[in-house]
Amino acid sequence: MFIYADNAATTKMSRAAIEAMTPYLTEVYGNPSSLYALGQRAKDGLEDARERIARLIGAEPREILFTSGGSEADNQAILSATAIGAKTGRRHIVSDTIEHHAVLHTLKKLEREGFEVTLVPVTPEGLVEPEAVEQAIRPDTCLVTVMTANNEIGTIQPVERIGEICRARGVLFHTDAVQAVGHLPLDVRKLNADMLSASAHKFHGPKGVGFLWARRGVALTSLIEGGAQERGKRAGTENVAGIVATAAALEEAVEGIDAVTKRLTPLRDRLIAGLSKIPHAALNGDPVRRAPSNVNFCFEGIEGEALLLLLDDRGIAASSGSACTSGSLDPSHVLLAIGRPHGVAHGSLRLSLGEDATEEQVDYMIRTVGEVVAYLRGFSPVWRDLVEGKAEFVL
Amino acid sequence: MFIYADNAATTKMSRAAIEAMTPYLTEVYGNPSSLYALGQRAKDGLEDARERIARLIGAEPREILFTSGGSEADNQAILSATAIGAKTGRRHIVSDTIEHHAVLHTLKKLEREGFEVTLVPVTPEGLVEPEAVEQAIRPDTCLVTVMTANNEIGTIQPVERIGEICRARGVLFHTDAVQAVGHLPLDVRKLNADMLSASAHKFHGPKGVGFLWARRGVALTSLIEGGAQERGKRAGTENVAGIVATAAALEEAVEGIDAVTKRLTPLRDRLIAGLSKIPHAALNGDPVRRAPSNVNFCFEGIEGEALLLLLDDRGIAASSGSACTSGSLDPSHVLLAIGRPHGVAHGSLRLSLGEDATEEQVDYMIRTVGEVVAYLRGFSPVWRDLVEGKAEFVL
Repeated sequence: MFIYADNAATTKMSRAAIEAMTPYLTEVYGNPSSLYALGQRAKDGLEDARERIARLIGAEPREILFTSGGSEADNQAILSATAIGAKTGRRHIVSDTIEHHAVLHTLKKLEREGFEVTLVPVTPEGLVEPEAVEQAIRPDTCLVTVMTANNEIGTIQPVERIGEICRARGVLFHTDAVQAVGHLPLDVRKLNADMLSASAHKFHGPKGVGFLWARRGVALTSLIEGGAQERGKRAGTENVAGIVATAAALEEAVEGIDAVTKRLTPLRDRLIAGLSKIPHAALNGDPVRRAPSNVNFCFEGIEGEALLLLLDDRGIAASSGSACTSGSLDPSHVLLAIGRPHGVAHGSLRLSLGEDATEEQVDYMIRTVGEVVAYLRGFSPVWRDLVEGKAEFVL
Repeated sequence: MFIYADNAATTKMSRAAIEAMTPYLTEVYGNPSSLYALGQRAKDGLEDARERIARLIGAEPREILFTSGGSEADNQAILSATAIGAKTGRRHIVSDTIEHHAVLHTLKKLEREGFEVTLVPVTPEGLVEPEAVEQAIRPDTCLVTVMTANNEIGTIQPVERIGEICRARGVLFHTDAVQAVGHLPLDVRKLNADMLSASAHKFHGPKGVGFLWARRGVALTSLIEGGAQERGKRAGTENVAGIVATAAALEEAVEGIDAVTKRLTPLRDRLIAGLSKIPHAALNGDPVRRAPSNVNFCFEGIEGEALLLLLDDRGIAASSGSACTSGSLDPSHVLLAIGRPHGVAHGSLRLSLGEDATEEQVDYMIRTVGEVVAYLRGFSPVWRDLVEGKAEFVL
């Protein structure tokens, strides 16, 4: 058995996406900025993709800017909003402690440039409370950025309400929707947002493509200067094949949201119920306000990395948190932010289901994770100390 | 007949590149930052591509940073060098008047941030004279950036000599080698450069991938903050499929350089000789120090755009200059910089040959361009004025 249970890290490209991409890799290879027919066909593919993507999220085509991925979109959104803010001396940003590093590290950079950042804390379930955001907004706040759904623990944030508050206070609102686009029903108008970031490879599109939606009237700052592509806001020959594939993938994903949610939610909850039976284990994130594919647990007395390698041996591809920071020895900033102590945060496991997950797979994962956790605890000195009462259980 | 004669704008992906890419679009879809085997296979593909590319340009693997394209690489190179310079109060940059907009517009941005930029003029052949660069260097110069080969007029710059001067003066040297990598023999060590930018889709790789070579010891500044990918200098899940395809394309291109140069040079010169027979026409760029694929002419009394559309009708895909600025009504800054007057610069044509160009195609282009130019002049008021002596011929 092979179960790919790391769909929050990346997804397999859909057949529709690959099929849509292929002609643009082979025949329609023109530069979309070129005047001749071969170039114009590429341009048509590009603009058709833009229209389709816009429609799928309730936006206008001219509000979609294609980027090389979600991180670039996050960076550009934040730097654009703060450039707008700086013009009127507003140099304060509100965000929260469990954002993706593409947001948090951009905010760090802005702090070095003289901006002030308030990160509101989250609840133990990883919820950003609208009231906390509201209280953090100051007269000099130029931007609120709160993600739609968390990439590690799956918590779905009350972004519509946060957007409402921002609108009432005249503050730009950006949401990193990388984990939400193609997975949760989403309409940018209802979100009350001004900017939204998305990444194609999270919804069965290609790696290396993302987009930034920016409400008409929000002036974007270029991250990449040069040619006049993307209305002059993002230089560089467009990745036409990737963009066309993105539209195809998103169409399929959005069409499937209701059915997938209906199918995955009970599977997710079955997986959560099963893993909850492992002693000294705890679910991370909100049990209800949660992405239908996301399961995230902490297990006391084990090392996440060893767990992942043994699961891989037994056919389960999973992660301990964000793929972007694996290789780092620090525990997840998200798990620390929801109150998990260092030691426990190290023993985390994220299983993010694919749309085609089955009950059989879920049961296999419950059984296998249980066995592997027990096995690892068998020679864990930390676990021995806990069992012998030399240390105290947290979970 | 269909002749794609715009290979400086973009190229058709090679079969080798598509074949190399395919498994990474379908089977090896893991996130290279993931620990499990599927992720590690993606990581292996990525690092293997890095090693191969490094070898092809005489670099070390760790000196290669993958980007979304040549423009991003140019931006990052320049912003990195100026960040280094700013630390010691060196805020002067030397470049030239015929750089790509990815360089020139980045320099404009830096001017707004308080940097000073000296653009050295070029010769009528579009040559950047090393002496001019040397004279422009000041004690506070932190960067010289001069392209390896010009994208519009094909002039090959004396970058080795310029690099030598920079090294002697302790100034960082970056070269935009987007038109050179895969087309001209190139070894980063011999170039005496510190940084070099490249774009995959210019050498039969995919759109949306580029790389920046930065000599070990040159501290790069991130353009995109977030995850720890690319040694922490470029966040975002890597476009593994595109990167693997880039390595395959570059290998094939570099292996072919000698043979292609030998084959294309006489074809290029035949095309130049043929077009030179058109009355009041002139070659742009240096006749000898010139990319083997590049032909660029000005024709008096015609509009470049009309020329392109009629050529397209007759099966020739060509451009008037840089694809990145088509749609703009301004004449090429490169043609103005080499001294062409506005009116003449508007009537320009770039034909950039593919490796598979034939004598038959060249002869067809000579004949067709001649006919179309004559046809357009037939109802050009500008041409009538010239013929009737009401205006003076420049060419």
